[in-house]
Amino acid sequence: MLIQSRDNPKIKLYTRLRDKKSARVDEGLFVLEGERLVAEALKEGVGLRSVFYTRLAEERFSGLVSDLCALCGQEAFEISDDAAQKLAGTVSPQGIFAIASRLDKTPPLDKIVFGGKYLILNRLQDPGNVGTILRAADAVGVSGVYLCSSCDIYNPKLVRSTMGSLFRLPVADCLSFEDTVSLFRRSGIPVYASVVDQDAADLSEFKFPESCAVVIGNEGNGLSAGETSLCDGRITIRMRGNTESLNAAAAAAILLWELMK
Amino acid sequence: MLIQSRDNPKIKLYTRLRDKKSARVDEGLFVLEGERLVAEALKEGVGLRSVFYTRLAEERFSGLVSDLCALCGQEAFEISDDAAQKLAGTVSPQGIFAIASRLDKTPPLDKIVFGGKYLILNRLQDPGNVGTILRAADAVGVSGVYLCSSCDIYNPKLVRSTMGSLFRLPVADCLSFEDTVSLFRRSGIPVYASVVDQDAADLSEFKFPESCAVVIGNEGNGLSAGETSLCDGRITIRMRGNTESLNAAAAAAILLWELMK
Repeated sequence: MLIQSRDNPKIKLYTRLRDKKSARVDEGLFVLEGERLVAEALKEGVGLRSVFYTRLAEERFSGLVSDLCALCGQEAFEISDDAAQKLAGTVSPQGIFAIASRLDKTPPLDKIVFGGKYLILNRLQDPGNVGTILRAADAVGVSGVYLCSSCDIYNPKLVRSTMGSLFRLPVADCLSFEDTVSLFRRSGIPVYASVVDQDAADLSEFKFPESCAVVIGNEGNGLSAGETSLCDGRITIRMRGNTESLNAAAAAAILLWELMK
Repeated sequence: MLIQSRDNPKIKLYTRLRDKKSARVDEGLFVLEGERLVAEALKEGVGLRSVFYTRLAEERFSGLVSDLCALCGQEAFEISDDAAQKLAGTVSPQGIFAIASRLDKTPPLDKIVFGGKYLILNRLQDPGNVGTILRAADAVGVSGVYLCSSCDIYNPKLVRSTMGSLFRLPVADCLSFEDTVSLFRRSGIPVYASVVDQDAADLSEFKFPESCAVVIGNEGNGLSAGETSLCDGRITIRMRGNTESLNAAAAAAILLWELMK
């Protein structure tokens, strides 16, 4: 079926889901844009409800578009360039979009097993940072990620930055920081706070136990003293150069690398 | 002096420098936006030619604005909100902008000293990635960075992503990849290519020599076989999880961390 108008209800649903967290929660849906992300979603078995593609995208990504049409049937729509512009959230859109069902991300909560290594993100606000961190967590192979008071994991920018890692990685985002730490405590798994403090244990010399969790705090303010005091220990990335100068995603990559080595 | 019009020649010079590499080269100037970046430039002794600030910015950052006015004299301009909007390259502008002289970034070329550790970036195209990598290089304390066939180091997005590290770090961007490798070879410093290849040496077990250089290649394609063959060895970030899933800046952070440990 061809959608030409920007005012088509499906187009309006997509933009609402793209722009509003409340719409994503109410509808139980989120959006995907771009060939790679949609292909990853298909591969990982994400529930695709509707797909949209331009004539040009159908030519460029013919295999993918035909797979999507077979899967979505009546819910696969060719769209005009004008409608595609309305959907696009990137500078150079590829003309391929999807609406997907929210993932079942609760399992990790009852899957904390001794032996695993976990990441906890507390009050992280930038969707691009969180997405990049989830992607790195997937790369090094952590057992699960817990987000507390952080940005919506279905934010389109976050989803895009994960490059599909969100579909693979066990992620939970429904507990408070206190409850998350308690959960690990009850499982006998120690929790380490990453801090900027020369008195904390030096990451390059620290021996992580076989099973543990590491906490990364807010981009600007880190973890509060109260939050840190809930943890079993404190570690820091000690640097030779200009210590202040490491963004949250770069610091997380280094931390995850040492955690999983 | 107050600038009200968007068509003022100073405003037009700023936007030309912001948008065009050719203008930055011709004029020998580049632009800075935001309180932190302008403050870092002042602190690091970057040659500030002109500064622009809104009434609101003068209230919020009064100490900084008064230092800038003392430094720039006739070249310090209060600007209208309308003119500030024309200058802004960020979503939430702080109303403070500067035009600066290009940095003298040639010294590292004759400063390659045995004992230093260096980073070479080859055909990196994304200004945000390159800026984040320069920031991490500054954080871990590398001796210098060489950019070959990569994006313009005065690109405003790159400058912003470095958060001031560009002003501190020795950076050279005038040699080809072949000439850069030769330069290190002649100094007796080995050069290692970072690659995605399970047969390359494992970064987590690799012992970097006291002095060396590491090469990072293009975001999408990495280094070519020919480029790799110019180097003394190959190293790879071996991961337990989904190997493909690590962006250029995250991979660079891990590499720099191991290099400087």
